[in-house]
Amino acid sequence: MEKIKLSEIRTPADIRKMDLSQLKALASEMRGALIDKLSVHGGHVGPNLGMVEAVIALHYVFDTPEDKIVFDVSHQTYPHKMLTGRMQAFTDAAHYDDVTGYTNPSESDYDLFSLGHTSSAVALAAGIAKARDLKGDKENVVAVIGDGSLSGGVAFEGLDYGATLGSNFIVVVNDNQMSIAENHGGIYADLRLLRNTNGEGEPNLFRSMGYAYRYVRYGNDLKSLIEMFRSVKDITYPVVVHINTEKGMGLKPAEEHKEEFHYSGPFDPKTGAPLQEESSEAEDYSEVFARKMLVLMKENQKVVTITAGTPGVLGFDKERRTEAGKQFVDVGIAEQAAVDVASGLAKGGMRPVAGFVSSFLQRAYDQFSQDIALNRQAATFVVFYGSMFGMNDETHLGFFDIALLSNIPGLIFLAPTCREEFEAMLDWSVRQNEKAVVVRAPGGMAVSDKAVRILDDYSRAEYDIVRKGSDIALIGAGTMFTYTSLAADILAEKGVNVTLINPRNLSQPDTETLDKLKGYKVVVTAEDGIIDGGFGQKVASYLGEAPVKVINLGLPKKFENRYSYSALQKECGLTPEQIASAALSALK
Amino acid sequence: MEKIKLSEIRTPADIRKMDLSQLKALASEMRGALIDKLSVHGGHVGPNLGMVEAVIALHYVFDTPEDKIVFDVSHQTYPHKMLTGRMQAFTDAAHYDDVTGYTNPSESDYDLFSLGHTSSAVALAAGIAKARDLKGDKENVVAVIGDGSLSGGVAFEGLDYGATLGSNFIVVVNDNQMSIAENHGGIYADLRLLRNTNGEGEPNLFRSMGYAYRYVRYGNDLKSLIEMFRSVKDITYPVVVHINTEKGMGLKPAEEHKEEFHYSGPFDPKTGAPLQEESSEAEDYSEVFARKMLVLMKENQKVVTITAGTPGVLGFDKERRTEAGKQFVDVGIAEQAAVDVASGLAKGGMRPVAGFVSSFLQRAYDQFSQDIALNRQAATFVVFYGSMFGMNDETHLGFFDIALLSNIPGLIFLAPTCREEFEAMLDWSVRQNEKAVVVRAPGGMAVSDKAVRILDDYSRAEYDIVRKGSDIALIGAGTMFTYTSLAADILAEKGVNVTLINPRNLSQPDTETLDKLKGYKVVVTAEDGIIDGGFGQKVASYLGEAPVKVINLGLPKKFENRYSYSALQKECGLTPEQIASAALSALK
Repeated sequence: MEKIKLSEIRTPADIRKMDLSQLKALASEMRGALIDKLSVHGGHVGPNLGMVEAVIALHYVFDTPEDKIVFDVSHQTYPHKMLTGRMQAFTDAAHYDDVTGYTNPSESDYDLFSLGHTSSAVALAAGIAKARDLKGDKENVVAVIGDGSLSGGVAFEGLDYGATLGSNFIVVVNDNQMSIAENHGGIYADLRLLRNTNGEGEPNLFRSMGYAYRYVRYGNDLKSLIEMFRSVKDITYPVVVHINTEKGMGLKPAEEHKEEFHYSGPFDPKTGAPLQEESSEAEDYSEVFARKMLVLMKENQKVVTITAGTPGVLGFDKERRTEAGKQFVDVGIAEQAAVDVASGLAKGGMRPVAGFVSSFLQRAYDQFSQDIALNRQAATFVVFYGSMFGMNDETHLGFFDIALLSNIPGLIFLAPTCREEFEAMLDWSVRQNEKAVVVRAPGGMAVSDKAVRILDDYSRAEYDIVRKGSDIALIGAGTMFTYTSLAADILAEKGVNVTLINPRNLSQPDTETLDKLKGYKVVVTAEDGIIDGGFGQKVASYLGEAPVKVINLGLPKKFENRYSYSALQKECGLTPEQIASAALSALK
Repeated sequence: MEKIKLSEIRTPADIRKMDLSQLKALASEMRGALIDKLSVHGGHVGPNLGMVEAVIALHYVFDTPEDKIVFDVSHQTYPHKMLTGRMQAFTDAAHYDDVTGYTNPSESDYDLFSLGHTSSAVALAAGIAKARDLKGDKENVVAVIGDGSLSGGVAFEGLDYGATLGSNFIVVVNDNQMSIAENHGGIYADLRLLRNTNGEGEPNLFRSMGYAYRYVRYGNDLKSLIEMFRSVKDITYPVVVHINTEKGMGLKPAEEHKEEFHYSGPFDPKTGAPLQEESSEAEDYSEVFARKMLVLMKENQKVVTITAGTPGVLGFDKERRTEAGKQFVDVGIAEQAAVDVASGLAKGGMRPVAGFVSSFLQRAYDQFSQDIALNRQAATFVVFYGSMFGMNDETHLGFFDIALLSNIPGLIFLAPTCREEFEAMLDWSVRQNEKAVVVRAPGGMAVSDKAVRILDDYSRAEYDIVRKGSDIALIGAGTMFTYTSLAADILAEKGVNVTLINPRNLSQPDTETLDKLKGYKVVVTAEDGIIDGGFGQKVASYLGEAPVKVINLGLPKKFENRYSYSALQKECGLTPEQIASAALSALK
């Protein structure tokens, strides 16, 4: 096989001159480079290895960037970045962090959107196609979406609208027979039927939505892909090109353990073994949650754990899913349905507990409001990575959920400060049958506080006055309680005896406690979320007429990107020293 | 035809004893009563008239309330209410307002949810079915959803999950060939195909999603419906029953003018003519918007108006839609896609302006955040009925959107106070090409203020100091500016000269102006939305360390239901007199 110098690939034009054997060599080189990088750097392993050939074929056939390609969720775009001027970030370890893990217009004109949530590509591309039609232009518009992402409602909405364009609109469905974990949903039987019949079978989901339909049996075969993409290039009506690919292709451990290698930290490329050993002591809140839920589900057959396609985030690996059996429900990547299924389960007398990544639960705001809160359903929702110490790509930020959910009437938003409190709140939430409850797992690894005061009932706001002082009150919510507590220590060392409060509940002010603070000189709130619309502003508003000074600490209303945790914490004045000094300065 | 005494129908058991001819007589009586009530009371005319037979057949065949029926959006449930203990509310004018326009568990055990947003019934019912299966029970679970509602993504998510239940799950698709207006989307060609082939054609959307499928050609024929429902009762797998009904059936004007009679105020049952003549002077913001957009679209071919199935709310009747031509886009009931199509259009160089009912835009929070704001798309979103003076059913409340959208980074949330300002903000929003903008139409009928100060650029927060006084500052946002202005007059009459501010922008504090207020004694904010997470709390937080007292006026965080506008306004202290007196008391 001819040797291709990856460093000479600067734009897709460089590959359009190649013949098939050169393209195959290119794919092989790229896959090798990807494995090299991913095994030391970590990242989305399976999605990218499976898409090497398809991405090469797309850029080979279509005249990017004039032709437009929108990649859904865009975690499969490492090969795309390699072909569009960013090869060095995949071949030179010193430059591995030059690029984000998602398409990003600030990196390249070949990247149309900064995206990390699934299922939106088809609707976005439909908008681009509509713009093209209105302008009378003729370029191809392509949306690339995985089979897993198809279960998200907005994918369906986009397909439904896209079918009405009546013009060039190419939807490539990358079917690797996997979501993050296994697929769940009625449509997957149809995808299987289509694969098993070489695309000829009926019924056909895509044709029923108004699309012409083509099938590529060997979606990792460059020749098949190129021929197919050529056949639909410049097509004058909407078409779905269904390609059958192998997730993790070319890396044996990733082919064999697709769920584990959807996203992975550094690993041994031979064995697949993780290189960073998990410390035997440190446990994250996913782990704490899963263990707790298995106990609760055993104790009470009515308890049901729900995920929208991210069982791993809830700590439910295959073994635990098997253990939970029918009491574990995965609705597929479909946050809206997850919340509504929880509502239906509650209506049916069950005790649903649904867990979400903070950034993804945004999809279901209306269901939280109308189908849960308005209907007073006793259901529990657990927020993971709801923290500045969670995921730090601009597409996955976890500090908007307090502002999003704590302002919904009747929804009790709890912010535990440690594992004991987290578990106690879960305990209570499935024991009671009146309230809709959000429990936001703290950020970072689980911390233990044996002294934390547990309540039997978290239904009404009851702030915990952990330490009683005077003049200054520090209120540290959730993750921030630890830092606020350290700030109290610092002040105590200086001889300033402050009141330290764990508010527990971020959705409702504890007016009795707050009334006591009206005679204070300074109240500082600290929360692990944006200040706007958050907890601290409720306190500031409640104390608005009192002479006490109120300082709200938290994050600015801003999409941070790939930030350093410690730098951002400092920037926000959220270190213990800064919290202490803010309080002291205000006192003067 | 036998005469049926409607007053004797108290529960569905009362109709289960009837024979077919009695049921037909019942349908006829019920339809007559509905027309009588609706023609003097107003309501959802078309959806209810079209469903009389289907609802009778459902309650006739299924053992409600043991068997569970979830009605999507539930505005078609007047016949259901008539059969389940609430007949008087449809036959006795003195009791017309005893019931809400939607299912409501506080009214009846036959009502499972309080629902007014579309597309959620299938996922909710799937949760109920899952609960049944976990309990080992055997009742039927039925979801009833209209063809229009099928375009909402959560309907698809619910269907996708429901197909995996592997047990009794009956989805009745009420196909009346209409959404609120005409349908839009690729699936509607398939529904037409199925109707035209008596359900035999391929492709079949429902079968492709994993459902068995049955078709009822005459969906207003009791015999056909009863036979079909009997045939699927106690079925042991998921099935879709597709029934072909006529919206507005039995009322000629409603059959002929389906869009106008989806919802209607009082009308002449013979001619269909509205009984309340529109005043020639009063114009609502829908009207102002549509006129303005037609001008803007003519001036600039790049301007595109978008709706998610509610063209009437945007003031776009059929004639105006025709006038706008390709520059008007209806994506169907699919708020997420509407926002994403706007994002794609902006990416393609267009100037999209999408309008939403406040309560419905909740569906698209994630798209506003990730696909618009994070991606810095120059797109405009107009909020209608975003006000306490909008729709007042608990399922359609319009006072949560400030808290929802104004806390998204980079999204400029503007609150015009009058038509001139509303138009100026629209003007600017389509002229600029950098910012994502929300313009919230004020509540109530359009008011004019020729003296309002218009800006060339609304991109940065620039509060308008309308009147300059001292000690007290009143900040009245959007709709509330009028009342705050009247409060300023009241205070002036008492010799208290206050500063009056129109903030214009509710998402970003104008720090320069707020800094000037630090030396004041009292600042009162008033907004037409919940206080929690809203505009006033931003002001309270910003002024938290200043000695000035801050009073935030607005609505409590609560789902109000069918409230009186004036009573709620008073309860919230938002009348001019109350605003003035709140300020004065704080001054003392």
